[in-house]
Amino acid sequence: MDERGLHRLIGTIIDPERLADDCAVIPCGDLAMVASTDMLHETTDFPTGMTDWQIGWMATAVTLSDIASMGAAPGEVLLAVGLDRPERLRGIMEGARDCCTTFGAELAGGDLDAHGELTIVSTGLGTVAPAYLVRRRGARPGDVVAVTGPLGEAQAALLGYDRHIRELLEPQPRVREGRALGHAGVSAMMDISDGLALSLYDLLAVNNCGFSIDTARLPLPAGVPDDEAQELALYGGGDFELLFTAPPDILPVPGVTAHIIGEVIEERAVLADEKPLERRGYLHEWKG
Amino acid sequence: MDERGLHRLIGTIIDPERLADDCAVIPCGDLAMVASTDMLHETTDFPTGMTDWQIGWMATAVTLSDIASMGAAPGEVLLAVGLDRPERLRGIMEGARDCCTTFGAELAGGDLDAHGELTIVSTGLGTVAPAYLVRRRGARPGDVVAVTGPLGEAQAALLGYDRHIRELLEPQPRVREGRALGHAGVSAMMDISDGLALSLYDLLAVNNCGFSIDTARLPLPAGVPDDEAQELALYGGGDFELLFTAPPDILPVPGVTAHIIGEVIEERAVLADEKPLERRGYLHEWKG
Repeated sequence: MDERGLHRLIGTIIDPERLADDCAVIPCGDLAMVASTDMLHETTDFPTGMTDWQIGWMATAVTLSDIASMGAAPGEVLLAVGLDRPERLRGIMEGARDCCTTFGAELAGGDLDAHGELTIVSTGLGTVAPAYLVRRRGARPGDVVAVTGPLGEAQAALLGYDRHIRELLEPQPRVREGRALGHAGVSAMMDISDGLALSLYDLLAVNNCGFSIDTARLPLPAGVPDDEAQELALYGGGDFELLFTAPPDILPVPGVTAHIIGEVIEERAVLADEKPLERRGYLHEWKG
Repeated sequence: MDERGLHRLIGTIIDPERLADDCAVIPCGDLAMVASTDMLHETTDFPTGMTDWQIGWMATAVTLSDIASMGAAPGEVLLAVGLDRPERLRGIMEGARDCCTTFGAELAGGDLDAHGELTIVSTGLGTVAPAYLVRRRGARPGDVVAVTGPLGEAQAALLGYDRHIRELLEPQPRVREGRALGHAGVSAMMDISDGLALSLYDLLAVNNCGFSIDTARLPLPAGVPDDEAQELALYGGGDFELLFTAPPDILPVPGVTAHIIGEVIEERAVLADEKPLERRGYLHEWKG
Protein backbone atom coordinates (compact mmCIF):
# COMPACT_ATOMS: atom_id res chain seq x y z
CA MET A 1 0.00 0.00 0.00
CA ASP A 2 1.36 3.48 -0.75
CA GLU A 3 0.91 6.77 1.04
CA ARG A 4 -2.05 7.92 -1.01
CA GLY A 5 -3.83 4.60 -0.42
CA LEU A 6 -3.45 5.13 3.31
CA HIS A 7 -4.71 8.69 2.90
CA ARG A 8 -7.91 7.29 1.47
CA LEU A 9 -8.26 5.10 4.57
CA ILE A 10 -7.75 8.17 6.76
CA GLY A 11 -10.58 9.86 4.85
CA THR A 12 -12.93 7.30 6.40
CA ILE A 13 -11.85 8.42 9.89
CA ILE A 14 -11.19 12.16 9.54
CA ASP A 15 -13.62 14.49 7.77
CA PRO A 16 -12.33 14.27 4.14
CA GLU A 17 -12.81 18.03 3.74
CA ARG A 18 -10.07 18.38 6.35
CA LEU A 19 -7.65 16.43 4.17
CA ALA A 20 -8.02 18.40 0.97
CA ASP A 21 -5.31 20.97 1.76
CA ASP A 22 -1.69 21.32 2.83
CA CYS A 23 -2.86 22.76 6.16
CA ALA A 24 -5.81 22.50 8.52
CA VAL A 25 -7.80 25.75 8.67
CA ILE A 26 -8.97 27.03 12.04
CA PRO A 27 -11.01 30.17 12.84
CA CYS A 28 -8.96 32.67 14.84
CA GLY A 29 -10.88 35.89 15.51
CA ASP A 30 -11.14 37.79 12.22
CA LEU A 31 -8.35 35.69 10.72
CA ALA A 32 -8.01 32.13 9.51
CA MET A 33 -5.25 30.17 11.21
CA VAL A 34 -3.57 27.44 9.18
CA ALA A 35 -1.70 24.57 10.82
CA SER A 36 0.59 21.97 9.28
CA THR A 37 2.69 19.14 10.67
CA ASP A 38 5.46 17.27 8.84
CA MET A 39 7.56 14.28 9.88
CA LEU A 40 11.09 13.81 8.54
CA HIS A 41 13.66 11.24 9.50
CA GLU A 42 17.24 10.44 8.75
CA THR A 43 17.14 7.45 6.41
CA THR A 44 14.33 8.73 4.19
CA ASP A 45 14.53 12.50 4.22
CA PHE A 46 18.03 13.72 5.03
CA PRO A 47 20.57 13.11 2.23
CA THR A 48 23.98 11.82 3.36
CA GLY A 49 26.36 14.63 4.17
CA MET A 50 23.74 17.07 5.43
CA THR A 51 24.85 19.05 8.45
CA ASP A 52 22.71 19.20 11.58
CA TRP A 53 22.09 22.89 10.86
CA GLN A 54 20.78 21.99 7.38
CA ILE A 55 18.57 19.27 8.89
CA GLY A 56 17.01 21.79 11.28
CA TRP A 57 16.60 24.25 8.41
CA MET A 58 14.93 21.71 6.13
CA ALA A 59 12.59 20.36 8.82
CA THR A 60 11.36 23.91 9.34
CA ALA A 61 11.24 24.81 5.66
CA VAL A 62 8.81 21.98 4.85
CA THR A 63 6.17 23.29 7.22
CA LEU A 64 6.72 26.93 6.20
CA SER A 65 6.20 25.80 2.61
CA ASP A 66 2.82 24.28 3.55
CA ILE A 67 1.82 27.56 5.18
CA ALA A 68 2.98 29.52 2.13
CA SER A 69 0.88 27.32 -0.13
CA MET A 70 -2.28 28.55 1.65
CA GLY A 71 -1.33 32.20 1.11
CA ALA A 72 -0.71 32.64 4.86
CA ALA A 73 1.97 34.44 6.85
CA PRO A 74 3.92 32.07 9.10
CA GLY A 75 3.73 32.63 12.86
CA GLU A 76 4.94 30.02 15.31
CA VAL A 77 6.84 26.78 14.70
CA LEU A 78 7.02 23.88 17.17
CA LEU A 79 9.71 21.25 16.75
CA ALA A 80 9.52 17.71 18.15
CA VAL A 81 12.96 16.14 17.96
CA GLY A 82 13.64 12.43 18.42
CA LEU A 83 17.37 12.66 19.00
CA ASP A 84 19.87 9.86 18.47
CA ARG A 85 22.87 11.78 19.88
CA PRO A 86 22.63 14.79 22.21
CA GLU A 87 25.46 16.69 20.50
CA ARG A 88 23.31 17.11 17.40
CA LEU A 89 20.66 19.19 19.14
CA ARG A 90 22.40 22.56 19.01
CA GLY A 91 22.94 22.48 15.24
CA ILE A 92 19.40 21.30 14.56
CA MET A 93 17.82 23.96 16.75
CA GLU A 94 20.00 26.72 15.30
CA GLY A 95 19.10 25.67 11.76
CA ALA A 96 15.42 25.68 12.68
CA ARG A 97 15.69 29.07 14.36
CA ASP A 98 17.56 30.58 11.41
CA CYS A 99 14.97 29.31 8.95
CA CYS A 100 12.21 30.76 11.12
CA THR A 101 13.95 34.13 11.39
CA THR A 102 14.62 34.28 7.64
CA PHE A 103 10.95 33.80 6.79
CA GLY A 104 9.34 35.85 9.58
CA ALA A 105 8.36 32.97 11.88
CA GLU A 106 9.27 32.26 15.50
CA LEU A 107 10.55 28.98 16.91
CA ALA A 108 8.20 28.81 19.88
CA GLY A 109 8.78 25.44 21.54
CA GLY A 110 8.59 21.73 21.04
CA ASP A 111 9.37 18.37 22.54
CA LEU A 112 12.48 16.29 22.96
CA ASP A 113 12.77 12.52 22.97
CA ALA A 114 15.54 9.91 22.72
CA HIS A 115 15.24 7.95 19.47
CA GLY A 116 17.34 5.39 17.65
CA GLU A 117 16.96 7.24 14.36
CA LEU A 118 16.94 11.02 14.18
CA THR A 119 13.31 12.03 13.63
CA ILE A 120 11.96 15.57 13.47
CA VAL A 121 8.37 16.72 13.32
CA SER A 122 7.82 20.40 12.67
CA THR A 123 4.45 21.97 13.19
CA GLY A 124 3.76 25.42 11.83
CA LEU A 125 0.99 27.91 12.43
CA GLY A 126 0.18 30.83 10.17
CA THR A 127 -2.54 33.39 9.72
CA VAL A 128 -4.29 34.97 6.75
CA ALA A 129 -7.37 37.09 6.17
CA PRO A 130 -10.08 34.64 5.02
CA ALA A 131 -10.47 36.53 1.73
CA TYR A 132 -6.85 35.73 0.80
CA LEU A 133 -6.80 32.09 1.95
CA VAL A 134 -5.99 29.79 -0.99
CA ARG A 135 -6.92 26.10 -1.09
CA ARG A 136 -6.16 23.24 -3.42
CA ARG A 137 -9.77 23.38 -4.56
CA GLY A 138 -10.82 26.35 -6.65
CA ALA A 139 -9.31 25.86 -10.12
CA ARG A 140 -11.61 26.85 -13.02
CA PRO A 141 -11.40 25.97 -16.71
CA GLY A 142 -9.66 28.83 -18.50
CA ASP A 143 -7.27 29.51 -15.61
CA VAL A 144 -3.57 29.17 -16.33
CA VAL A 145 -1.40 26.62 -14.51
CA ALA A 146 1.88 28.06 -13.22
CA VAL A 147 4.85 27.37 -10.94
CA THR A 148 7.11 29.76 -9.05
CA GLY A 149 10.48 28.44 -10.22
CA PRO A 150 12.57 25.68 -11.79
CA LEU A 151 11.46 22.11 -11.07
CA GLY A 152 13.62 19.05 -10.50
CA GLU A 153 16.60 20.83 -8.99
CA ALA A 154 16.58 18.85 -5.72
CA GLN A 155 16.39 15.56 -7.58
CA ALA A 156 19.15 16.73 -9.94
CA ALA A 157 21.40 17.34 -6.92
CA LEU A 158 20.65 13.83 -5.66
CA LEU A 159 21.82 12.53 -9.04
CA GLY A 160 25.13 14.35 -8.74
CA TYR A 161 24.47 17.76 -10.35
CA ASP A 162 26.28 19.58 -7.58
CA ARG A 163 25.32 23.07 -8.75
CA HIS A 164 21.87 22.34 -7.29
CA ILE A 165 23.08 21.12 -3.92
CA ARG A 166 21.81 24.21 -2.09
CA GLU A 167 18.27 23.73 -3.47
CA LEU A 168 18.44 20.17 -2.09
CA LEU A 169 19.97 20.87 1.32
CA GLU A 170 18.82 24.41 2.13
CA PRO A 171 15.45 24.73 0.41
CA GLN A 172 13.80 28.14 0.33
CA PRO A 173 10.06 27.98 1.04
CA ARG A 174 8.13 30.44 -1.12
CA VAL A 175 6.63 32.35 1.77
CA ARG A 176 6.70 35.83 0.23
CA GLU A 177 5.45 34.48 -3.10
CA GLY A 178 2.61 32.52 -1.49
CA ARG A 179 1.28 35.57 0.32
CA ALA A 180 1.54 37.77 -2.77
CA LEU A 181 -0.25 35.18 -4.92
CA GLY A 182 -3.01 34.87 -2.30
CA HIS A 183 -3.51 38.62 -2.24
CA ALA A 184 -3.56 38.71 -6.04
CA GLY A 185 -6.40 36.17 -6.16
CA VAL A 186 -4.98 32.91 -7.48
CA SER A 187 -7.68 30.23 -7.57
CA ALA A 188 -5.87 27.13 -6.20
CA MET A 189 -2.41 26.44 -4.81
CA MET A 190 -0.20 23.76 -3.25
CA ASP A 191 3.50 23.10 -2.85
CA ILE A 192 5.27 20.53 -5.01
CA SER A 193 7.07 18.32 -2.52
CA ASP A 194 6.44 14.99 -4.26
CA GLY A 195 6.98 16.18 -7.83
CA LEU A 196 4.88 18.06 -10.39
CA ALA A 197 3.04 15.03 -11.78
CA LEU A 198 1.76 13.79 -8.42
CA SER A 199 0.89 17.34 -7.41
CA LEU A 200 -1.25 17.79 -10.52
CA TYR A 201 -3.03 14.53 -9.66
CA ASP A 202 -3.56 15.84 -6.11
CA LEU A 203 -5.22 18.93 -7.59
CA LEU A 204 -7.28 16.69 -9.89
CA ALA A 205 -8.61 14.78 -6.88
CA VAL A 206 -10.24 17.85 -5.32
CA ASN A 207 -11.20 19.92 -8.37
CA ASN A 208 -14.02 19.37 -10.80
CA CYS A 209 -11.80 20.03 -13.83
CA GLY A 210 -8.45 18.94 -15.27
CA PHE A 211 -4.98 20.21 -16.09
CA SER A 212 -3.14 20.30 -19.40
CA ILE A 213 0.53 21.21 -19.40
CA ASP A 214 2.98 21.90 -22.19
CA THR A 215 6.32 20.24 -21.41
CA ALA A 216 8.16 22.76 -23.60
CA ARG A 217 7.20 25.45 -21.08
CA LEU A 218 8.52 23.67 -17.97
CA PRO A 219 11.28 25.63 -16.20
CA LEU A 220 14.08 23.03 -16.17
CA PRO A 221 17.04 22.59 -13.85
CA ALA A 222 20.10 24.30 -15.33
CA GLY A 223 23.10 22.24 -16.43
CA VAL A 224 21.17 19.01 -17.03
CA PRO A 225 20.67 17.47 -20.53
CA ASP A 226 17.19 18.32 -21.80
CA ASP A 227 15.66 14.83 -21.75
CA GLU A 228 16.85 14.13 -18.24
CA ALA A 229 15.89 17.63 -17.11
CA GLN A 230 12.31 17.14 -18.31
CA GLU A 231 12.07 13.80 -16.50
CA LEU A 232 13.28 15.49 -13.30
CA ALA A 233 10.94 18.44 -13.70
CA LEU A 234 7.90 16.16 -14.07
CA TYR A 235 8.67 13.43 -11.56
CA GLY A 236 11.48 14.56 -9.22
CA GLY A 237 10.70 15.10 -5.53
CA GLY A 238 12.05 17.55 -3.00
CA ASP A 239 11.19 20.83 -4.73
CA PHE A 240 9.77 23.69 -2.70
CA GLU A 241 8.13 25.65 -5.50
CA LEU A 242 4.44 26.50 -5.50
CA LEU A 243 2.03 25.16 -8.11
CA PHE A 244 -1.01 27.35 -8.68
CA THR A 245 -3.88 28.15 -11.00
CA ALA A 246 -5.03 31.69 -11.70
CA PRO A 247 -7.25 33.74 -13.98
CA PRO A 248 -4.84 34.84 -16.77
CA ASP A 249 -5.51 38.53 -16.23
CA ILE A 250 -4.01 38.66 -12.72
CA LEU A 251 -0.54 37.67 -13.97
CA PRO A 252 2.17 38.79 -13.66
CA VAL A 253 1.92 39.41 -9.91
CA PRO A 254 4.42 42.15 -9.02
CA GLY A 255 7.54 40.74 -7.38
CA VAL A 256 6.67 37.10 -8.05
CA THR A 257 8.50 35.04 -10.67
CA ALA A 258 5.96 32.71 -12.24
CA HIS A 259 6.23 30.33 -15.19
CA ILE A 260 2.99 29.51 -16.97
CA ILE A 261 3.15 25.81 -17.88
CA GLY A 262 -0.38 25.04 -19.04
CA GLU A 263 -4.06 25.61 -18.51
CA VAL A 264 -7.05 24.32 -16.59
CA ILE A 265 -9.40 22.28 -18.80
CA GLU A 266 -12.92 20.95 -18.41
CA GLU A 267 -11.92 17.32 -18.93
CA ARG A 268 -11.07 15.64 -15.62
CA ALA A 269 -7.58 14.48 -16.61
CA VAL A 270 -3.95 15.45 -16.27
CA LEU A 271 -2.43 15.87 -19.73
CA ALA A 272 1.12 16.64 -20.86
CA ASP A 273 1.40 17.64 -24.52
CA GLU A 274 -2.22 16.45 -24.88
CA LYS A 275 -1.48 12.90 -23.69
CA PRO A 276 -2.28 11.50 -20.20
CA LEU A 277 0.60 12.21 -17.84
CA GLU A 278 2.05 9.26 -15.99
CA ARG A 279 1.03 9.28 -12.32
CA ARG A 280 4.35 8.75 -10.57
CA GLY A 281 6.84 10.60 -8.39
CA TYR A 282 7.99 10.40 -4.82
CA LEU A 283 5.81 8.20 -2.60
CA HIS A 284 6.50 6.59 0.74
CA GLU A 285 5.87 2.88 0.25
CA TRP A 286 5.16 0.13 2.75
CA LYS A 287 5.77 -3.51 1.92
CA GLY A 288 2.86 -5.88 2.43
CA MET B 1 23.19 14.44 29.37
CA ASP B 2 19.51 14.19 30.35
CA GLU B 3 16.43 15.82 28.92
CA ARG B 4 16.43 18.77 31.29
CA GLY B 5 20.10 19.47 30.50
CA LEU B 6 19.24 19.64 26.81
CA HIS B 7 16.29 21.90 27.65
CA ARG B 8 18.77 24.36 29.18
CA LEU B 9 20.71 24.30 25.91
CA ILE B 10 17.51 25.01 24.01
CA GLY B 11 16.97 28.01 26.27
CA THR B 12 20.02 29.59 24.64
CA ILE B 13 18.38 29.26 21.20
CA ILE B 14 14.66 29.78 21.88
CA ASP B 15 13.37 32.63 24.06
CA PRO B 16 13.40 30.99 27.54
CA GLU B 17 10.04 32.59 28.32
CA ARG B 18 8.65 30.38 25.57
CA LEU B 19 9.86 27.27 27.37
CA ALA B 20 8.33 27.92 30.78
CA ASP B 21 4.98 26.24 30.07
CA ASP B 22 3.41 23.04 28.77
CA CYS B 23 2.19 24.93 25.69
CA ALA B 24 3.23 27.87 23.56
CA VAL B 25 0.79 30.78 23.88
CA ILE B 26 -0.29 32.62 20.72
CA PRO B 27 -2.64 35.60 20.38
CA CYS B 28 -5.83 34.67 18.51
CA GLY B 29 -8.27 37.54 18.28
CA ASP B 30 -9.74 38.08 21.75
CA LEU B 31 -8.56 34.65 22.85
CA ALA B 32 -5.22 33.07 23.67
CA MET B 33 -4.39 30.02 21.60
CA VAL B 34 -2.21 27.37 23.21
CA ALA B 35 -0.21 24.86 21.18
CA SER B 36 1.61 21.74 22.28
CA THR B 37 3.52 19.01 20.48
CA ASP B 38 4.53 15.60 21.91
CA MET B 39 6.57 12.79 20.42
CA LEU B 40 5.99 9.18 21.46
CA HIS B 41 7.51 6.02 20.08
CA GLU B 42 7.16 2.33 20.48
CA THR B 43 10.18 1.24 22.51
CA THR B 44 10.03 4.07 25.03
CA ASP B 45 6.42 5.07 25.37
CA PHE B 46 4.08 2.24 24.45
CA PRO B 47 4.04 -0.63 26.97
CA THR B 48 4.08 -4.13 25.49
CA GLY B 49 0.60 -5.41 24.78
CA MET B 50 -0.95 -2.06 23.97
CA THR B 51 -3.40 -2.18 21.08
CA ASP B 52 -3.06 0.20 18.15
CA TRP B 53 -6.29 1.87 19.28
CA GLN B 54 -4.78 2.48 22.72
CA ILE B 55 -1.61 3.85 21.12
CA GLY B 56 -3.64 6.37 19.12
CA TRP B 57 -5.64 7.25 22.22
CA MET B 58 -2.54 7.80 24.37
CA ALA B 59 -0.70 9.84 21.73
CA THR B 60 -3.69 12.17 21.64
CA ALA B 61 -4.25 12.21 25.40
CA VAL B 62 -0.73 13.53 26.10
CA THR B 63 -1.28 16.66 24.06
CA LEU B 64 -4.83 17.19 25.39
CA SER B 65 -3.34 16.97 28.88
CA ASP B 66 -0.89 19.78 28.04
CA ILE B 67 -3.78 21.92 26.81
CA ALA B 68 -5.78 21.13 29.96
CA SER B 69 -2.86 22.21 32.13
CA MET B 70 -3.13 25.74 30.71
CA GLY B 71 -6.85 25.95 31.54
CA ALA B 72 -7.73 25.87 27.83
CA ALA B 73 -10.43 24.11 25.84
CA PRO B 74 -8.99 21.76 23.22
CA GLY B 75 -9.73 22.48 19.55
CA GLU B 76 -7.80 20.75 16.78
CA VAL B 77 -5.33 17.88 16.94
CA LEU B 78 -2.83 17.04 14.18
CA LEU B 79 -1.18 13.63 14.15
CA ALA B 80 2.12 12.84 12.42
CA VAL B 81 2.51 9.08 12.20
CA GLY B 82 5.77 7.31 11.33
CA LEU B 83 4.31 3.93 10.52
CA ASP B 84 6.18 0.63 10.58
CA ARG B 85 3.30 -1.46 9.16
CA PRO B 86 0.36 -0.06 7.17
CA GLU B 87 -2.23 -2.30 8.84
CA ARG B 88 -1.70 -0.45 12.11
CA LEU B 89 -2.94 2.88 10.79
CA ARG B 90 -6.67 2.30 11.13
CA GLY B 91 -6.49 1.38 14.83
CA ILE B 92 -4.19 4.28 15.63
CA MET B 93 -6.36 6.83 13.84
CA GLU B 94 -9.56 5.49 15.39
CA GLY B 95 -8.01 5.67 18.87
CA ALA B 96 -6.91 9.24 18.21
CA ARG B 97 -10.31 10.21 16.87
CA ASP B 98 -12.14 8.63 19.80
CA CYS B 99 -9.92 10.42 22.31
CA CYS B 100 -10.56 13.71 20.49
CA THR B 101 -14.31 13.15 20.45
CA THR B 102 -14.41 12.19 24.13
CA PHE B 103 -12.73 15.43 25.18
CA GLY B 104 -14.33 17.85 22.73
CA ALA B 105 -11.45 18.12 20.25
CA GLU B 106 -11.33 17.38 16.52
CA LEU B 107 -8.75 15.28 14.69
CA ALA B 108 -8.05 17.74 11.90
CA GLY B 109 -5.17 16.30 9.89
CA GLY B 110 -1.57 15.26 10.01
CA ASP B 111 1.24 13.62 8.14
CA LEU B 112 2.17 10.07 7.30
CA ASP B 113 5.63 8.61 6.91
CA ALA B 114 7.21 5.14 6.69
CA HIS B 115 9.39 4.50 9.72
CA GLY B 116 11.26 1.52 11.14
CA GLU B 117 9.89 2.15 14.61
CA LEU B 118 6.33 3.32 15.15
CA THR B 119 6.58 7.02 16.07
CA ILE B 120 3.69 9.40 16.68
CA VAL B 121 3.77 13.13 17.20
CA SER B 122 0.53 14.74 18.25
CA THR B 123 0.09 18.47 18.13
CA GLY B 124 -2.85 20.08 19.87
CA LEU B 125 -4.36 23.53 19.72
CA GLY B 126 -6.68 24.99 22.32
CA THR B 127 -8.19 28.33 23.20
CA VAL B 128 -8.90 30.16 26.42
CA ALA B 129 -9.88 33.69 27.43
CA PRO B 130 -6.62 35.37 28.52
CA ALA B 131 -8.04 35.99 32.01
CA TYR B 132 -8.37 32.24 32.58
CA LEU B 133 -5.04 31.16 31.09
CA VAL B 134 -2.92 29.39 33.72
CA ARG B 135 0.85 29.09 33.52
CA ARG B 136 3.48 27.22 35.49
CA ARG B 137 4.58 30.56 36.87
CA GLY B 138 2.28 32.30 39.35
CA ALA B 139 2.51 30.36 42.63
CA ARG B 140 2.52 32.57 45.76
CA PRO B 141 3.53 31.73 49.34
CA GLY B 142 0.42 30.80 51.26
CA ASP B 143 -1.19 29.04 48.29
CA VAL B 144 -2.03 25.39 48.70
CA VAL B 145 -0.44 22.70 46.48
CA ALA B 146 -2.95 20.20 45.11
CA VAL B 147 -3.44 17.40 42.58
CA THR B 148 -6.56 16.20 40.77
CA GLY B 149 -6.31 12.49 41.58
CA PRO B 150 -4.26 9.49 42.69
CA LEU B 151 -0.59 9.50 41.73
CA GLY B 152 1.57 6.55 40.71
CA GLU B 153 -1.19 4.45 39.16
CA ALA B 154 0.45 4.17 35.73
CA GLN B 155 3.75 3.12 37.26
CA ALA B 156 1.92 0.65 39.52
CA ALA B 157 0.41 -0.98 36.43
CA LEU B 158 3.88 -1.25 34.89
CA LEU B 159 4.96 -3.11 38.04
CA GLY B 160 2.15 -5.61 37.68
CA TYR B 161 -0.73 -4.10 39.65
CA ASP B 162 -3.24 -4.95 36.96
CA ARG B 163 -6.14 -3.07 38.53
CA HIS B 164 -4.44 0.12 37.25
CA ILE B 165 -3.91 -1.08 33.69
CA ARG B 166 -6.54 1.26 32.28
CA GLU B 167 -4.85 4.32 33.85
CA LEU B 168 -1.65 3.19 32.12
CA LEU B 169 -3.03 2.30 28.70
CA GLU B 170 -6.07 4.57 28.33
CA PRO B 171 -5.16 7.68 30.30
CA GLN B 172 -7.85 10.30 30.83
CA PRO B 173 -6.54 13.85 30.37
CA ARG B 174 -8.07 16.24 32.91
CA VAL B 175 -9.61 18.53 30.33
CA ARG B 176 -12.80 19.40 32.20
CA GLU B 177 -10.90 19.84 35.46
CA GLY B 178 -8.24 22.07 33.88
CA ARG B 179 -10.82 24.46 32.49
CA ALA B 180 -12.76 24.60 35.75
CA LEU B 181 -9.58 25.25 37.72
CA GLY B 182 -8.58 28.01 35.32
CA HIS B 183 -11.96 29.68 35.65
CA ALA B 184 -11.77 29.37 39.45
CA GLY B 185 -8.45 31.24 39.50
CA VAL B 186 -5.73 28.75 40.38
CA SER B 187 -2.32 30.46 40.41
CA ALA B 188 -0.07 27.91 38.62
CA MET B 189 -0.65 24.57 36.92
CA MET B 190 1.06 21.79 34.94
CA ASP B 191 0.47 18.13 34.22
CA ILE B 192 2.49 15.44 35.99
CA SER B 193 3.79 13.29 33.16
CA ASP B 194 7.26 12.67 34.61
CA GLY B 195 6.24 12.18 38.24
CA LEU B 196 5.31 14.50 41.10
CA ALA B 197 8.87 15.14 42.32
CA LEU B 198 10.20 16.30 38.93
CA SER B 199 7.06 18.34 38.35
CA LEU B 200 7.56 20.19 41.64
CA TYR B 201 11.15 20.93 40.58
CA ASP B 202 9.84 22.18 37.23
CA LEU B 203 7.56 24.58 39.11
CA LEU B 204 10.48 25.59 41.33
CA ALA B 205 12.51 26.53 38.23
CA VAL B 206 10.03 29.20 37.12
CA ASN B 207 8.58 30.46 40.42
CA ASN B 208 10.21 32.71 42.97
CA CYS B 209 9.08 30.53 45.89
CA GLY B 210 9.14 26.87 46.98
CA PHE B 211 6.86 23.91 47.69
CA SER B 212 6.42 21.88 50.83
CA ILE B 213 4.38 18.70 50.68
CA ASP B 214 3.14 16.32 53.34
CA THR B 215 3.56 12.73 52.15
CA ALA B 216 0.76 11.57 54.44
CA ARG B 217 -1.64 13.59 52.29
CA LEU B 218 -0.62 12.08 48.93
CA PRO B 219 -3.48 10.27 47.19
CA LEU B 220 -1.95 6.82 46.70
CA PRO B 221 -2.66 4.10 44.12
CA ALA B 222 -5.14 1.60 45.55
CA GLY B 223 -4.10 -1.97 46.24
CA VAL B 224 -0.38 -1.24 46.64
CA PRO B 225 1.47 -1.60 50.00
CA ASP B 226 1.89 1.83 51.59
CA ASP B 227 5.68 2.17 51.32
CA GLU B 228 5.72 1.19 47.67
CA ALA B 229 2.65 3.31 46.96
CA GLN B 230 4.35 6.41 48.35
CA GLU B 231 7.45 5.77 46.23
CA LEU B 232 5.24 5.46 43.15
CA ALA B 233 3.24 8.58 43.98
CA LEU B 234 6.39 10.68 44.34
CA TYR B 235 8.54 9.35 41.53
CA GLY B 236 6.40 7.28 39.14
CA GLY B 237 5.87 8.54 35.59
CA GLY B 238 2.95 8.30 33.22
CA ASP B 239 0.25 9.97 35.31
CA PHE B 240 -2.14 12.41 33.69
CA GLU B 241 -3.26 14.29 36.78
CA LEU B 242 -2.87 18.05 37.12
CA LEU B 243 -0.64 19.65 39.75
CA PHE B 244 -1.67 23.16 40.73
CA THR B 245 -1.35 25.87 43.33
CA ALA B 246 -4.27 28.01 44.46
CA PRO B 247 -5.32 30.52 47.09
CA PRO B 248 -6.92 28.32 49.79
CA ASP B 249 -10.25 30.16 49.68
CA ILE B 250 -11.10 29.13 46.10
CA LEU B 251 -11.19 25.41 47.00
CA PRO B 252 -13.14 23.26 46.60
CA VAL B 253 -13.92 24.05 42.96
CA PRO B 254 -17.38 22.64 42.16
CA GLY B 255 -17.16 19.41 40.19
CA VAL B 256 -13.40 19.02 40.55
CA THR B 257 -11.86 16.39 42.80
CA ALA B 258 -8.72 17.92 44.33
CA HIS B 259 -6.37 16.60 46.98
CA ILE B 260 -4.43 19.23 48.90
CA ILE B 261 -0.93 17.82 49.42
CA GLY B 262 1.02 20.80 50.74
CA GLU B 263 1.65 24.51 50.54
CA VAL B 264 3.69 27.12 48.71
CA ILE B 265 6.53 28.47 50.89
CA GLU B 266 8.90 31.42 50.61
CA GLU B 267 12.04 29.29 50.70
CA ARG B 268 13.11 28.26 47.19
CA ALA B 269 13.16 24.52 47.80
CA VAL B 270 11.06 21.41 47.31
CA LEU B 271 10.41 19.77 50.68
CA ALA B 272 8.61 16.57 51.63
CA ASP B 273 7.84 16.25 55.34
CA GLU B 274 10.15 19.24 55.85
CA LYS B 275 13.18 17.56 54.24
CA PRO B 276 14.49 18.23 50.70
CA LEU B 277 12.75 15.96 48.22
CA GLU B 278 14.94 13.85 45.98
CA ARG B 279 14.96 15.17 42.42
CA ARG B 280 14.28 12.05 40.41
CA GLY B 281 11.60 10.50 38.23
CA TYR B 282 11.15 9.68 34.59
CA LEU B 283 13.77 11.27 32.33
CA HIS B 284 14.83 10.46 28.81
CA GLU B 285 18.58 9.83 28.97
CA TRP B 286 21.22 9.91 26.27
CA LYS B 287 24.51 8.14 26.63
CA GLY B 288 27.65 10.20 26.01
